[in-house]
Amino acid sequence: MDLDRLQQLIGHRFDDAALLRQALTHRSFGQPNNERLEFLGDSVLNCVVATMLYRHFGRLDEGDLSRLRSNLVKQQALYEIAQRIGLSEHLQLGEGELRSGGHRRPSILADALEGIFGAIFLDAGFPAAEKAIVALYEPVLRSVDPLTLGKDAKTLLQEWLQSRKLPLPVYSVVATHGAAHSQMFEVECAIPKLQIRVLGSGASRRAAEQGAARRALEAAQAAMPPERKRSRARADAPVRGDAPAAA
Amino acid sequence: MDLDRLQQLIGHRFDDAALLRQALTHRSFGQPNNERLEFLGDSVLNCVVATMLYRHFGRLDEGDLSRLRSNLVKQQALYEIAQRIGLSEHLQLGEGELRSGGHRRPSILADALEGIFGAIFLDAGFPAAEKAIVALYEPVLRSVDPLTLGKDAKTLLQEWLQSRKLPLPVYSVVATHGAAHSQMFEVECAIPKLQIRVLGSGASRRAAEQGAARRALEAAQAAMPPERKRSRARADAPVRGDAPAAA
Repeated sequence: MDLDRLQQLIGHRFDDAALLRQALTHRSFGQPNNERLEFLGDSVLNCVVATMLYRHFGRLDEGDLSRLRSNLVKQQALYEIAQRIGLSEHLQLGEGELRSGGHRRPSILADALEGIFGAIFLDAGFPAAEKAIVALYEPVLRSVDPLTLGKDAKTLLQEWLQSRKLPLPVYSVVATHGAAHSQMFEVECAIPKLQIRVLGSGASRRAAEQGAARRALEAAQAAMPPERKRSRARADAPVRGDAPAAA
Repeated sequence: MDLDRLQQLIGHRFDDAALLRQALTHRSFGQPNNERLEFLGDSVLNCVVATMLYRHFGRLDEGDLSRLRSNLVKQQALYEIAQRIGLSEHLQLGEGELRSGGHRRPSILADALEGIFGAIFLDAGFPAAEKAIVALYEPVLRSVDPLTLGKDAKTLLQEWLQSRKLPLPVYSVVATHGAAHSQMFEVECAIPKLQIRVLGSGASRRAAEQGAARRALEAAQAAMPPERKRSRARADAPVRGDAPAAA
């Protein structure tokens, strides 16, 4: 296992290479594996991402910060970073996991990446882990829209309409299909003012409403010109009393 | 507001005293308040407690570590520490909150303590926050029983019985009272081998079972001598490959 290139990509050279190997070892391979390191890395990651968001978005309230954080540390975000640094070719998996394509499974890759963060923390302390995480997350953070990331379609549609002083959409179930245990719902989302009527379907009323809201938002955005960016700049501005200290 | 004594008790002297004042300011008092600092402090606290647990319990798996962590960072644990350091006399609250006894409210005290952790982090970085949190949590950690903390009564009873090779308890609903929207359940928990039959009641079947399990465990422990401590020592032992680095 040539780990030089990986250490370059994660921005940390290990004093104790055994820690890195442990972080790359799935439980299916045996002991020691990355399960405890993942526990540790998860909380280090949470802390570093919280710090980044706190400093970057000086005017977002704690609810918005929490929403952004949970979206940046969730499996999909970790999986995308793991793919970027080619983590799958370094994993140690048991026979069965290997055969079933475990080295491409998002959960396994995300866990291993968290394990690496925990391993860096043990190898060289918080500042080293912070440095590596910040470097890997910078491109992610740059692409974050703090006003929309992690919000569901119904919320986004509602906020879009409210910001244009338009009345709220009306949802109604137009049909249900199938037996009780495998029902499908069809829901209409109507915005009469914009002459929009679209359908969404799903295994629950809620899921069908979200689908309809997504289509309605697309239709509404196509029908009306985009608004100028207002709040993005505000959210970015640091405020007095919240100035970051040197880490 | 004399903050000298408080800074002594939390083990950190602020360079920027405005940060400490902000941490002590509830949103009812105005701006700047501690809501954003609380977001930051919550994640710093999570990270430090995870580290303490990882190092202290070298053989606990990640599930047990997560259970312990969530119990140590929850509102009640923070509230008890806040009381120990007399936090309530330093809070800045709005008129209404003051009149309704807000300075004694567990949620307000817990949030302010998290705000203080965030403020220390901004004032002097991670090591300073870690030092303060470790000092405040040391007495808490010493009293933790990793085998029981945060487990519900049914789980504890089941584990107690299994460790003695005794058969599992039997739960049965013996009565329900009241109308549909305000029902009360009465559940019996029976351990025939120990001749134990006790009742528990609650607003749900689940709650009633937990109540009955609690009583059954008390009765069982009274009926049988305590087992020698086995797993506590094992959970404490550090393992190779997990050795902590200097923080």
